[in-house]
Amino acid sequence: MTLDATHDAHRQSWVETANAPDTDFPLQNLPFGRFSDATQATPRIGVAIGDQVLDLTRLADALPPSEAATAQVGFQVCATGDLSELCALPPAAVTALRGWLSNALWDGSPDADLWRTRLSPFFVPQAEATLHRPLDFKNYTDFYASVFHATNVGAMFRPENPLLPNYKYVPIGYHGRASSVVASGTPIGRPQGQLRPNPEAPPVFGPSRLLDYELEVGIIVGQGNRLGEPIPVARADEHIFGLCLLNDWSARDIQAWEYQPLGPFLSKSFATSVSPWIVTRDALAPFRCAAFARPEGDPAPLEYLFDAADQSGGGFEVTLEVELTTAVMREAGFPPAQLSQSRLSSLYWTPAQMLAHHTSNGCNLQPGDLLGSGTVSGPTKEARGCLLELTWRGAEPLTLPSGETRRFLEDGDEVTFRGFCHRAGFRRIGFGECRGRIVASR
Amino acid sequence: MTLDATHDAHRQSWVETANAPDTDFPLQNLPFGRFSDATQATPRIGVAIGDQVLDLTRLADALPPSEAATAQVGFQVCATGDLSELCALPPAAVTALRGWLSNALWDGSPDADLWRTRLSPFFVPQAEATLHRPLDFKNYTDFYASVFHATNVGAMFRPENPLLPNYKYVPIGYHGRASSVVASGTPIGRPQGQLRPNPEAPPVFGPSRLLDYELEVGIIVGQGNRLGEPIPVARADEHIFGLCLLNDWSARDIQAWEYQPLGPFLSKSFATSVSPWIVTRDALAPFRCAAFARPEGDPAPLEYLFDAADQSGGGFEVTLEVELTTAVMREAGFPPAQLSQSRLSSLYWTPAQMLAHHTSNGCNLQPGDLLGSGTVSGPTKEARGCLLELTWRGAEPLTLPSGETRRFLEDGDEVTFRGFCHRAGFRRIGFGECRGRIVASR
Repeated sequence: MTLDATHDAHRQSWVETANAPDTDFPLQNLPFGRFSDATQATPRIGVAIGDQVLDLTRLADALPPSEAATAQVGFQVCATGDLSELCALPPAAVTALRGWLSNALWDGSPDADLWRTRLSPFFVPQAEATLHRPLDFKNYTDFYASVFHATNVGAMFRPENPLLPNYKYVPIGYHGRASSVVASGTPIGRPQGQLRPNPEAPPVFGPSRLLDYELEVGIIVGQGNRLGEPIPVARADEHIFGLCLLNDWSARDIQAWEYQPLGPFLSKSFATSVSPWIVTRDALAPFRCAAFARPEGDPAPLEYLFDAADQSGGGFEVTLEVELTTAVMREAGFPPAQLSQSRLSSLYWTPAQMLAHHTSNGCNLQPGDLLGSGTVSGPTKEARGCLLELTWRGAEPLTLPSGETRRFLEDGDEVTFRGFCHRAGFRRIGFGECRGRIVASR
Repeated sequence: MTLDATHDAHRQSWVETANAPDTDFPLQNLPFGRFSDATQATPRIGVAIGDQVLDLTRLADALPPSEAATAQVGFQVCATGDLSELCALPPAAVTALRGWLSNALWDGSPDADLWRTRLSPFFVPQAEATLHRPLDFKNYTDFYASVFHATNVGAMFRPENPLLPNYKYVPIGYHGRASSVVASGTPIGRPQGQLRPNPEAPPVFGPSRLLDYELEVGIIVGQGNRLGEPIPVARADEHIFGLCLLNDWSARDIQAWEYQPLGPFLSKSFATSVSPWIVTRDALAPFRCAAFARPEGDPAPLEYLFDAADQSGGGFEVTLEVELTTAVMREAGFPPAQLSQSRLSSLYWTPAQMLAHHTSNGCNLQPGDLLGSGTVSGPTKEARGCLLELTWRGAEPLTLPSGETRRFLEDGDEVTFRGFCHRAGFRRIGFGECRGRIVASR
């Protein structure tokens, strides 16, 4: 993917807040999402710029086709309010929409004053908008692509043989529940389920005691494939619409008792949170990196998972952070405690490999499908992406600034994920936040 | 559920073919599905009667509201062509639509001649219709509810401990892939994937060699539940819209290598076939039966899975059959070979228990969701619902009438499921067929 004027770090916007050095949403980002406001409950498509949302659905209705120019196809689907329609477009049409927006919002454009006047009725402050989940997902698949996470979890349960024999060959994944994917900010009810705290006694039904988050990135599928027609790994990157943050909330006690032999089910399906903004593949172009450097002795990917361009540039360099605020901390005015920081580039498999694997049996992906990366953990303790790992199954509780300790999440705890890309010579690109607060079981 | 005039075995229809004793679709059945014909490619909602489909979508447009009477709400949603809208209605509205149809199609109705004239433009012969999958499923969950299947499969892999400790407490299930659920008759491409025929050597990528069917019943969810609001087991039966046949095609070699630790993924997601007609809960009312009689020593269901009415009448007495026709058999004119016959009533868990369990963590079911029963195997060899069991992992090949043998499915093999309900004093109710033929990997 080539870098163009939309990535130019010198471009500033006439939306002043987009020029703040620490904003997640400079002119170079332009992530898509869905929002609503007091004027209408139905979600519309918007793009984040500084602290504003530009309403693309209403703009599409108001803009004469002659002024939409090259972005006409993109605006047509924005009028529907359905972001999966945007995902279904050829990548060039999404690139064209992004290019149009970048020019119209640029303060150096010859028509900057005209566009400022034209577009001003279509801004909604983010603080006044309700940010929805970006799509009503039809399909959600969750991978397990961090070898550090898989090794840590394996070590707890099988110390002598932490990593299963298939791990370095198969991008392990499973189908998740699409209906319970919720917008950032949605309260997370502590799930009830079968638990077996005493392995000598029968299971009991009750609220999970070992509730956890999982730091993940969501990959939003762009164009899909027909049933029976796999996507070759060399073409798979083109099928990525963009990335978001994803919290794969997990009830470890329900999981431990239910997962054999068919995998996680109710331990995950009570809720999965996603951040509201999808950062496009275009916006991330400056932050591509090589695939994971497999240590000496690891097998090479099988041919259907190997592509030279994917190996050299199929990764994404995104820094991910987890923050926790407890009820006591909120009350006492403590700032959130950072629990971990890890890097998306540490995944054993690239998103293109995940897509190629997913479709290798002929399975059809659909525009707007959600693929979770799996917990993004790194090689150090500070880079562990869930409490299961951070507290080593509860054996090493965390101490928080408030003096409280945590093995797993308590009611009132709020978990916030953040993500950003940083590279010298480029504007910082942010993902916004993915947030959820635990509320007691009913 | 009470029996009413729609179940009366003496009621005959003026659609003559509905009165044949061996029809799957007598007046007492009236299953819903989606079809199209040469006049229009977009699927419409229809009801099967004898060898005909009555086009409810076009009828809904043509029928003056005054004539739809009590069935008005049902007809309104039939006009949309989206069967999930019918699933979303209160059960009483679906019952009312069924009652209206039963009266209009009954040859003993005082207005029989009028209705015969009125409705005649809205029939399409099934032989001329394309039968679609009944819904564009958003969510698909597959259970594992046959203790005989679970024990057989367990015995092959863990002879000393065939049934895992959670089985008799947890209605085991996993999320399946909704996008690859296909209509009966859709050719099934042999999937490719990672296989490890030699456990001492690295895996290879290629066409599955151990392709299998799984005889299942699909439970179609009626009204859903809100996220965070479990459906109590005592109310769960009301959330069943109806049943269909389901073939959970499985690549055993892909499955064996990929499934740890997160369960089946690509071994299942290449295709799942469903029969075109949903037999409603109303139509099945005469064929309800007690839940599985747990042997002495088995634990009682935990409280959230126990309801006295469900125990006494939550089961369904449906006979299920599997037939196989190979390319050689077709060529030589052999009739299909029956491979097995089993009974839905042999499941360890009732559909209501599956729904209650699925939502016990707060997971939201949506109208039209598909829940698979898991392979329906019975206690005898003749009642094994997949080739894995029938040939005991290939160790005991089947001999077919053509003299061929089968361990697993070969290209050209066609598998057909049938299902029916039979009880003295009632009309036989059929499910039609769920059919798929294996085609070579591309």
